[in-house]
Amino acid sequence: MPEVKAILFDVFGTVVDWRSSLIEDLQSFGQSRGIPADWPALVDAWRGAYRPSMDRVRKGGAPWTVLDDLHGASLRELVARFGIAGLSEADLDRITRFWHRLRPWPDAVAGLLRLKRRFIVATLSNGNVGLQVNLAKAAGLPWDMIFGADLFCHYKPDPETYLGACALLRLPPGQVMLAAAHNDDLRAAQSLGLGTGFIPRPTEYGPHQTRDSGPAGGWDVTAADFVQFAERMGA
Amino acid sequence: MPEVKAILFDVFGTVVDWRSSLIEDLQSFGQSRGIPADWPALVDAWRGAYRPSMDRVRKGGAPWTVLDDLHGASLRELVARFGIAGLSEADLDRITRFWHRLRPWPDAVAGLLRLKRRFIVATLSNGNVGLQVNLAKAAGLPWDMIFGADLFCHYKPDPETYLGACALLRLPPGQVMLAAAHNDDLRAAQSLGLGTGFIPRPTEYGPHQTRDSGPAGGWDVTAADFVQFAERMGA
Repeated sequence: MPEVKAILFDVFGTVVDWRSSLIEDLQSFGQSRGIPADWPALVDAWRGAYRPSMDRVRKGGAPWTVLDDLHGASLRELVARFGIAGLSEADLDRITRFWHRLRPWPDAVAGLLRLKRRFIVATLSNGNVGLQVNLAKAAGLPWDMIFGADLFCHYKPDPETYLGACALLRLPPGQVMLAAAHNDDLRAAQSLGLGTGFIPRPTEYGPHQTRDSGPAGGWDVTAADFVQFAERMGA
Repeated sequence: MPEVKAILFDVFGTVVDWRSSLIEDLQSFGQSRGIPADWPALVDAWRGAYRPSMDRVRKGGAPWTVLDDLHGASLRELVARFGIAGLSEADLDRITRFWHRLRPWPDAVAGLLRLKRRFIVATLSNGNVGLQVNLAKAAGLPWDMIFGADLFCHYKPDPETYLGACALLRLPPGQVMLAAAHNDDLRAAQSLGLGTGFIPRPTEYGPHQTRDSGPAGGWDVTAADFVQFAERMGA
């Protein structure tokens, strides 16, 4: 493994548990407002719209749009499709901002604090900067730097994101590692010369998840959680 | 004063004491290497080259260049002009990176930690992101976000910097405040609708400083140091 100076972290799924957080917040919201719905199904469909909505931007089918706005647009489509009534525009904006307060996996903050003593720890997320700043404050994520897709006007896995973060840090890709729970993200990073750290999150998509349960490539480091990852990185 | 959600801080001079730090590091370096020079005069001349070098970029006389590289180029000119011999290219790169480890003013970290509990605290600096990440780690500056000129390819006081940071935070300028020891920086921010906080640093340029000793505009908040600034901001 080359001499790593900075570790970039995927955020949604790798650092924070978006699914449980959104289900909890939506169920609580629905209950307080007397709006019944299959909220877990809505959350899964919402996340299902994530990749297609970014790919539309990536492939030129839509102009550059930050993730907050993609989330807002897909929520509105899904609320109509699910037949959920009684939500105002302010409600929909509020629900979209539930992504700003997702809870971290239990090991995430402890592992990041250890890693931060030895490495630059930063995000490399498709989330926009504003979303991530709010998320980091709410969850206590001790980032040295936040890289969001809106800094590059590109979504992962476009090379502009990985290489853009390296360039802003003024480090060659060989001194930067991507840490992620997703094999496809690591594959893109590895092809550009970055180091790779795989931390599986086998319940990210719920109890029946089959994808990304184990490493599907020759990653530099694999660890069960962020604390073990810090240990294996010598931090 | 409008409802402020984020405070952007000028860094060089406002948060960190560049002059004393650079003089200390250069004197220590010169002594260890047996290279005599008037290091304080070199530091003052180096800082003197700062604004003209950025203005050359701002006015189109040079392509976009990050501050690390402007610092490196002006150092090389000054070393020749001062007749300082015996410095290798590696030495010059090392000295340029003394900007990455400037020490904070004694009140800076305590004030920022208080402000961070209530506000988003971020930089808005002409320093590039990589420089600032290293500086924040060395000095323990608890930023929620780092905005560097290289994110915008513009130097302050170009409006693209102030408005670019607001846009990335997804906040209107009226919910963002600039905190700085420099009246001209605050003037630019105020003209764009940002709030303004003035914290004088009357010895930034040394014992004979006359500029920026007091507020030269109608700033929203003036405070003697960062701790008093936090108090006045209700944090």
